[in-house]
Amino acid sequence: MSRSGEFEMIARFFAPLAATYRGALKLTDDAAIIDTSDGLDRVVTSDAMIEGVHFLKSDPPRRAARKALRVNLSDLAAMGAVPEAYTLVLQVPQDYDDDWIGEIAQGLKEDQAQFGIALIGGDTVSADAPAVLSITAIGKIEPGRALRRSGAGAGDDIYVTGTIGDAKLGLDILREAAGTQLRETDRQAAIDRYQLPEPRTAVGETLVGVASACIDVSDGLVADAHHLAEESGLQARLALHKVPWSSAVDSSPDYPEKARVIAGDDYELLFTAPAGRRDAVAGVARDTGVRVTRIGRMSRGDGVLVVDDAGDPVTFERTGYQHR
Amino acid sequence: MSRSGEFEMIARFFAPLAATYRGALKLTDDAAIIDTSDGLDRVVTSDAMIEGVHFLKSDPPRRAARKALRVNLSDLAAMGAVPEAYTLVLQVPQDYDDDWIGEIAQGLKEDQAQFGIALIGGDTVSADAPAVLSITAIGKIEPGRALRRSGAGAGDDIYVTGTIGDAKLGLDILREAAGTQLRETDRQAAIDRYQLPEPRTAVGETLVGVASACIDVSDGLVADAHHLAEESGLQARLALHKVPWSSAVDSSPDYPEKARVIAGDDYELLFTAPAGRRDAVAGVARDTGVRVTRIGRMSRGDGVLVVDDAGDPVTFERTGYQHR
Repeated sequence: MSRSGEFEMIARFFAPLAATYRGALKLTDDAAIIDTSDGLDRVVTSDAMIEGVHFLKSDPPRRAARKALRVNLSDLAAMGAVPEAYTLVLQVPQDYDDDWIGEIAQGLKEDQAQFGIALIGGDTVSADAPAVLSITAIGKIEPGRALRRSGAGAGDDIYVTGTIGDAKLGLDILREAAGTQLRETDRQAAIDRYQLPEPRTAVGETLVGVASACIDVSDGLVADAHHLAEESGLQARLALHKVPWSSAVDSSPDYPEKARVIAGDDYELLFTAPAGRRDAVAGVARDTGVRVTRIGRMSRGDGVLVVDDAGDPVTFERTGYQHR
Repeated sequence: MSRSGEFEMIARFFAPLAATYRGALKLTDDAAIIDTSDGLDRVVTSDAMIEGVHFLKSDPPRRAARKALRVNLSDLAAMGAVPEAYTLVLQVPQDYDDDWIGEIAQGLKEDQAQFGIALIGGDTVSADAPAVLSITAIGKIEPGRALRRSGAGAGDDIYVTGTIGDAKLGLDILREAAGTQLRETDRQAAIDRYQLPEPRTAVGETLVGVASACIDVSDGLVADAHHLAEESGLQARLALHKVPWSSAVDSSPDYPEKARVIAGDDYELLFTAPAGRRDAVAGVARDTGVRVTRIGRMSRGDGVLVVDDAGDPVTFERTGYQHR
C-alpha cells in the first residue's frame, strides 16, 4: 500500500485537475481567483457526501467522486447556472492509499470534461472516520436571471425531468432488498441512477427565461414540490398517475407509486412554467434530449396535493427524506 | 437532549446568520447568488477542521466554529482579499444536541460581526464520526491586485506579523505537556492562540500594493517560507534571532527556538516587500495596530536558509507540519 503525503498528493492527483482554470493558480497559492470581468453573477452551493450515508463503501470510489460533484452540479442546474469551478475537501478514509486517491481523481477528471468545470482548491484531511467528499461548486448566471424556487404563479404547469424513484430502487438492489425479479438491464439502470445521478445542467441553463420556478429533486418529489410551493406561496397539485417511471421502476410491483414519489436522490429538476409556455418547454426537451413530463399545476393554497387518476387525494405519512 | 431536524436546524440556527446577505436567499433556495456588479474579482478558499485533529473535543464548540472560519479568513488575508461570504458543511458529532449547534452558530455569529462576512449556504450531515467543520470562504479583490506567493524579488525584505510558535505551545498546554511553569496570563494567551487564531485580514487588505508576495503561516514559519520561496523562484533567508516571540513563548525554556519556527497553526502573515517600501510597511503596521517584524531577505537560490545571530546556518530535520 502506497500513500503520498499531502503535498505529493496535490501535485500528483489534484493539480492536473486545476490545469485548465487560470485562477486556480495551479493549486499553489493560498486561494483561487475568479475573474468576473465577464459581468456574470456567481452561484454558489456546498454539499457533502459521506461513505455509508450518501454512498456505499462498496461503491466504486470513481463513482462516489462523480456523485459528489454531480449533486452539486444539480443545485447549479436548479438555478439555471453554467458550471465553472469547484473546491473539494476530501476526508480520506482510514484505509486509503494512492490507488483510492487515484480513482477519486480519475472520476473527477471524467466529469470535469463532461460538465466543463475545473478544480480550483480544497483541502485533504484524515481522521478515524469514513470517507467524506465535501464540494463547493460555483456557476455563472446573467445578473437577475437565476431560477428561483419562489417564482411560480397560480395556474403554472408543473414539470419534472427524467423519471422518479430510480435511485431508491438502485440503493435497495445494492442492499439486496429489491430487484431479484428485474431484468439485468433494469437492475443496472437503477444502480446507475443511485451511484451516478445525471445532473440536468443543460436543461437548467435552457430553462432560464422559460421556467418560472425550479428546484432539484433530492429529498423526494413530494418534499421538493413542497419546498417550491412554500417559497412561491402556492399549492402544488400533482397527478400521481402522470409521474414518469423508468422501465426498472415500472417493473417493480413491490415498489408502490406512493413510495417512489417520496424517495430521495433522484436529482431531476422539478419546475414550473406558465401554460402559455408549453411550446417553449417542449423546445427545451427537444434541444437537450431530456424527457420532460407535465405532472401538475400550481394553485392557490399551500403545501402539496397529490391526486390519483380518479382525482382523489393521496395521503402520505411522511413526504420525503428526513435530514438529520 | 433536544435535537432539531435539518430543516428546523437551518431555520433556527443558520438562517439568522444569512440574514444580512441578500444573495443568500435566506438559505431557502438551491444555491446562493453573488452579485459581481461591483467589478471585483472573487477569491475562494476551502479548509476543514476535524475534532481531535485540528481542535480538541474539550475545546468550547463556540471557539471551534470561530477557528474553522478564521483559518479560511487567514487564507483570504494572505491574498489581500476582503471577506464577503462563506458556506459551511457541518458534520455533526454523534452526541450532538441543539445546545452544541447553538454554540456553533453563536461562535459564527460573533465572528461574522467582527470580520464583516455572512453565511450563504452549506449542508449538515451526520455519521458515526467526529465533528467536522468544512468552510469555503469567498472574498473580494480588485482585478489583478491579489497578493501572490510568487511575486517576491531578490533583495526583498521578509516580514512576519504578530508572534510565532504560540499555537503549538497552547496545544501542548491543553495536552498537559507544557506550561506548568508559566504565569496564568501567559498560559491563557497561548491557549487562546491555539483555539482562536487572529486572521490578519486588515493587514492583508492594507498590504495590497505594498507587499510583493504573501502567504499565511499555517504549516510553520520555515515550511511556509519554503512555499513562498519556491513559488517566487528564490531563497528565503531568515534570521532566527529576529523572529518575534510572545511573552508566553519567551518564558518557555523547554520550547527551543528551532521548534517554534516549525510549529503550525500560527495564522500570521509572512510577506515580502522591496527594501524601498519599509516606510509603507511601517505604515501598515501603524494603521492596523498589528506588530510587523522584519526577519530576513529574499536571495537568489532556492529553499530556506535559517541563520543564527552569529550568521551560522541552522539545520532542521523537518521543516513543518506534515500533512497527510
